[in-house]
Amino acid sequence: MARQQSNGFRYIFFDADDTLWENERYFREAERKFIGLLSSFAPADEIGRILAEKQEENIPIFGYGSKTYLIGMADAAAEICGKEFGAELYHGINRIIRELAYHEFRLIDGVTETLETLSASGRYRLAIATKGDLMEQMNKYRQSGLQKYFHHIEIMESKSEADYLAMAAKLDIAPERILMVGNSVKSDIVPVINIGGFAIHLPHEVTWIHEMMDLPESKRVSGAKNIREIPILVDKIQTLAQELQVETSE
Amino acid sequence: MARQQSNGFRYIFFDADDTLWENERYFREAERKFIGLLSSFAPADEIGRILAEKQEENIPIFGYGSKTYLIGMADAAAEICGKEFGAELYHGINRIIRELAYHEFRLIDGVTETLETLSASGRYRLAIATKGDLMEQMNKYRQSGLQKYFHHIEIMESKSEADYLAMAAKLDIAPERILMVGNSVKSDIVPVINIGGFAIHLPHEVTWIHEMMDLPESKRVSGAKNIREIPILVDKIQTLAQELQVETSE
Repeated sequence: MARQQSNGFRYIFFDADDTLWENERYFREAERKFIGLLSSFAPADEIGRILAEKQEENIPIFGYGSKTYLIGMADAAAEICGKEFGAELYHGINRIIRELAYHEFRLIDGVTETLETLSASGRYRLAIATKGDLMEQMNKYRQSGLQKYFHHIEIMESKSEADYLAMAAKLDIAPERILMVGNSVKSDIVPVINIGGFAIHLPHEVTWIHEMMDLPESKRVSGAKNIREIPILVDKIQTLAQELQVETSE
Repeated sequence: MARQQSNGFRYIFFDADDTLWENERYFREAERKFIGLLSSFAPADEIGRILAEKQEENIPIFGYGSKTYLIGMADAAAEICGKEFGAELYHGINRIIRELAYHEFRLIDGVTETLETLSASGRYRLAIATKGDLMEQMNKYRQSGLQKYFHHIEIMESKSEADYLAMAAKLDIAPERILMVGNSVKSDIVPVINIGGFAIHLPHEVTWIHEMMDLPESKRVSGAKNIREIPILVDKIQTLAQELQVETSE
């Protein structure tokens, strides 16, 4: 049985970090600065390893974003430097994180023209679905100048199936009304198709190890090499979505 | 002209911290612990003052919540202790914040029975609209056991008129369809009535200085001394809302 409201998808959600704007490269830059800051205390690879460990320990407690990264750096510095971890080192970490949170902001090439095309078609509601820290993502959203294209932005604690289902319930839409576009197979693709939605995987040259996973085989998943391919892909997926729905309702 | 969808309010939003569950008291407890931790470096009132300064400086940069409080404490300790700010002090701060983020959780008396009554009436959609850190508030929400009463939870960067308007637009509802219940005049009452909604002020015995403001005079604002008064108040406000709407549409 088809739900009466369904007629293909209605919302196109875009992931933000490394889909609309650069992010991971700035975290890597912050990591390099941190390794430089502690270079007289330990070898670079040891500092990198301890920082990564602290970060993985802290994400389940403190969530994503640069504040958690600051805590991870301070945890790592306290472990590595012991009694020599002092106000000066702490201020160095604080400075790295403020630069990270307010870094030079860069949209990914082709984003504006793609959103312009999708928006002009008037067939879909465009929105953002991103993880991360609330204030940090809102700051980037304002800085992006992309607000005029989006119905709204959802900042999510995580991107599990349950999280996407909660988002759909909040907006009173069925999951099959959602098409998600993003660079992370684990966060943007797999959970969305598992709840009956559609997804476009748009890889980014720099991917966080925390997010790596193989692309699943499914009619509901498409791949794009460049964001400019999205408007044509979207129309193809809409045709498929309507066909799938007819099959389901027969 | 009345909008066709309007017939009084439809959503009752509850603030969370110090409206549904205790919060401010735990921040004060963390402050006391921090003052104790630094007691050999400075007098209590000086530590308290510097911490409050750092916190006010950091909120616009890092937002609300215990991670920002950790950064404020580390900033204050670095200033107060200088070279003597070391790994041990940092670990002490980290411990205080972990206890704060995972403190003993307590619902405010009468919350469950009030939500039960409102929920049983079936006349309204109940939801939460709270500021704070995303992960921290989600953790408290899960811990509360109140999910069954709520359509959803909104975690907002701040609670300005613009933020409430964005929330209403996201949910496709007119602002006059919203009744907000909360303890902060500044965040829960004033912006909501300014955009045409309704509000119930429910004071809490411990209020953060950052949130203090006088209650405005308006037909759209009611006061309650105890959350148990809310179901009867809600019905009265609904009658008023429908009358106001008739006036507006004539």
